[in-house]
Amino acid sequence: MRSASFDRAEVIGKITDAFWENGYEATSIGVLEGAAGLKRQSLYNAFGNKDAMFEIALGYYETEVSMSLLDALADDDPLTAIATFFATQAATLLDPSRPSGCLVAGGQQELANRDGELGERMSGLIGEQYDALVAAFERWRDAGKLTDDADPQDLAAIMMAQMRGQSVLGRSARGRALIECSAKAMPGLFERYLA
Amino acid sequence: MRSASFDRAEVIGKITDAFWENGYEATSIGVLEGAAGLKRQSLYNAFGNKDAMFEIALGYYETEVSMSLLDALADDDPLTAIATFFATQAATLLDPSRPSGCLVAGGQQELANRDGELGERMSGLIGEQYDALVAAFERWRDAGKLTDDADPQDLAAIMMAQMRGQSVLGRSARGRALIECSAKAMPGLFERYLA
Repeated sequence: MRSASFDRAEVIGKITDAFWENGYEATSIGVLEGAAGLKRQSLYNAFGNKDAMFEIALGYYETEVSMSLLDALADDDPLTAIATFFATQAATLLDPSRPSGCLVAGGQQELANRDGELGERMSGLIGEQYDALVAAFERWRDAGKLTDDADPQDLAAIMMAQMRGQSVLGRSARGRALIECSAKAMPGLFERYLA
Repeated sequence: MRSASFDRAEVIGKITDAFWENGYEATSIGVLEGAAGLKRQSLYNAFGNKDAMFEIALGYYETEVSMSLLDALADDDPLTAIATFFATQAATLLDPSRPSGCLVAGGQQELANRDGELGERMSGLIGEQYDALVAAFERWRDAGKLTDDADPQDLAAIMMAQMRGQSVLGRSARGRALIECSAKAMPGLFERYLA
């Protein structure tokens, strides 16, 4: 077996961008061939089938893009953390060098209601991000930073939905105009629950 | 030309459900044939091509499902309106007799970044809903119901993103568990801006 004559990391980046821009369904093997500049047999040999390539893209996306979002939650001040969280999200969604929207939000819209591994995976990602958000609100509450009536699960659910919705809005120019407004105004809403 | 021997309204409902459940891309003509119980030539004759059927589904969805959401904004009390808005949205998303998620959110995720009529249409729907939300917040502010620092555009953007994000969460059982939490807690966040 000959070793592949391409830069694996670079091709993974291109595969990720193709799924990110077009969505799972619209990204045919033909689209992936074009994006990667490789014949389908080379793609299959190197990465497996379309679902395997989508999995690889998700892993790449999580490491390169979405990890930094949850990093914002480490701040001890909830208002700073929430502001950084949404500023980071807005910067990603409004970065003109990147595809529009969010690979995870798109995958959850297209696949999370399906049976099978990919559906499970997209659905499972909700749990991981939600748990990190709940843990952050619990930490702030336990540190006396939040009012007694602040419910970590409810507030985390609002953060999750806001983040996903911004990603959908990020798919069009008209929607992108709303992302900065909502990112800027979200911390203000949470003032209600600051101790 | 023979007249079609099927109930047009019933078939439109089935076509809408197919796009709603599977998304635009995954709903092939074969899927539409199965959903409608009609051969493709009958579908084409009655409704036009796949894009035309998606347009018809959108119109049906707006009339039957998403209209009532904006009706909630007519209330003179912003807190009641916001609570009704999110309760209506949650009831739609959690209705077990309906497909999961939201046809408009799905269409915006899949199509709003594309050139052409369907992309324009999905992107344009953001403007319609956003304008209705901005108008409601302006009305409440002018009636002295909101604080001076309440920005109708920012608050409307947050409502838009929250609504779209809930729709994405609605695509999986794990996400659906978060919808009631966020719907219940959203009005509380807006207390910050009540006069």
